[in-house]
Amino acid sequence: MQERAFALKRAGKTISCVPTMGFLHQGHLSLIRAARASADVLVVTIFVNPAQFGPSEDYRTYPRDPERDLRLCRQEQVDIVFAPEACDIYPDGYSTYIEETDLSRWLCGANRPGHFRGVATVVTKLFNIVQPDLAYFGQKDYQQSRVIMKMVKDLNLPVRIEVCPIVREDDGLAMSSRNKYLNPEERQEALCLYRALSRAEELVISGEYSAAKIREEMEAVIGQEVHSRIDYIEIRDGKTLEPRDQVGEGTLIALAVFIGKTRLIDNLVIGKVPG
Amino acid sequence: MQERAFALKRAGKTISCVPTMGFLHQGHLSLIRAARASADVLVVTIFVNPAQFGPSEDYRTYPRDPERDLRLCRQEQVDIVFAPEACDIYPDGYSTYIEETDLSRWLCGANRPGHFRGVATVVTKLFNIVQPDLAYFGQKDYQQSRVIMKMVKDLNLPVRIEVCPIVREDDGLAMSSRNKYLNPEERQEALCLYRALSRAEELVISGEYSAAKIREEMEAVIGQEVHSRIDYIEIRDGKTLEPRDQVGEGTLIALAVFIGKTRLIDNLVIGKVPG
Repeated sequence: MQERAFALKRAGKTISCVPTMGFLHQGHLSLIRAARASADVLVVTIFVNPAQFGPSEDYRTYPRDPERDLRLCRQEQVDIVFAPEACDIYPDGYSTYIEETDLSRWLCGANRPGHFRGVATVVTKLFNIVQPDLAYFGQKDYQQSRVIMKMVKDLNLPVRIEVCPIVREDDGLAMSSRNKYLNPEERQEALCLYRALSRAEELVISGEYSAAKIREEMEAVIGQEVHSRIDYIEIRDGKTLEPRDQVGEGTLIALAVFIGKTRLIDNLVIGKVPG
Repeated sequence: MQERAFALKRAGKTISCVPTMGFLHQGHLSLIRAARASADVLVVTIFVNPAQFGPSEDYRTYPRDPERDLRLCRQEQVDIVFAPEACDIYPDGYSTYIEETDLSRWLCGANRPGHFRGVATVVTKLFNIVQPDLAYFGQKDYQQSRVIMKMVKDLNLPVRIEVCPIVREDDGLAMSSRNKYLNPEERQEALCLYRALSRAEELVISGEYSAAKIREEMEAVIGQEVHSRIDYIEIRDGKTLEPRDQVGEGTLIALAVFIGKTRLIDNLVIGKVPG
């Protein structure tokens, strides 16, 4: 892949990249469509990255369907699918890791130690292999997108990062490969994340800017579901991820909630997503 | 620099790079001469990297002479000297670090916590900025060269690493910018590192392969100097840096010794340096 990327570069081609863990859904396809138009050659990577899963997390059971993924990529006229094995990316004796030490501390980083180290490491490796000019990530993983943007800036990686809006099911549930884990009852309960965010947005529109008050109302919405357990509800600056007492332009409202055994995340940025 | 590197790449040029902390000596010049012939464009970087110095180490006092360095680079027909400021490389809020977690644990890594994290981070940044096809390092910093080779392989960095032999003063002292710290008496005592390595080599040639015995004799050589204090004497596999009880082909004999307040390092590989 790296050789092919350099050959494309020498031929003056630009490369865009959509890194994924596969089991593609409409969220991924929206990234692929955005990336498609932006460069000469579109590379989709499919790699369920063991380094970003904790020991008690769902690496083994994470949903996979490589044939369907390939079919979808073909339909979307993806030029190259790069789908390495874990042993190609982390051969025996692998020992180098990248850590973003500021934005990674909060939110998902607090409850998933090592998660963003795994993300930062694999994304850097994929960038070094694919040599993209542009790379596309989804806003659903908001913190991930900020960690990657910070890492790219800090390490002088010659890649532009584009973040695309969350794609939702008709009823509001944010698209996620992990939605597959939900049984029908949980699938209904999972709507509480979107309902909580919608309630927060209503409150802000009506002039309620207190983070404490908004969080309290969101907790009440989540608490209505029998199988829900809040991992976090956080109201933070959309750029620095520092806590905010008052909601305003560029504030991030993010939450992680267990529905049964499935951990789901969702978020909302008030006004424009910071650059 | 990065823009210029990409312009050179687009024009089909190859780039070689010699990363240095400046205060150039014959060791650096040997790297520059080796790099000169290997690519179309030769870039020397000069950057005293704060991230690789511990809080009680010599970052502030590390010798600097930018004008002399530039003059030497001009004499050696270096094409580009890249000499950023610390605030360019680590702007306010900098938060991304690279850690090699295996080879970095031993030797200098054990007594200089964070040192190789600083090295790995800055070398990756310099590679991302300069975009070299080849980069040259000195064998004097043997462990550094192995950490960088491992990092380059692990992170799929598209750079070939070349390691050049140690350059010594006529009396055997390994060239180092830190030799400048030595007063005349210490300068004489500093020869004990080379004498200890020479003694080790003699022993191996005479058929003494016991690491314990060799270390003991080296300790005796160092102990003869009044102002010497051994930081470490290690006999290890030249590739994995794992301890070795017996010396053989590819074994590394490395030492770090304080002469007064100045910490000096030197090493010797039995037979061929591993690839």
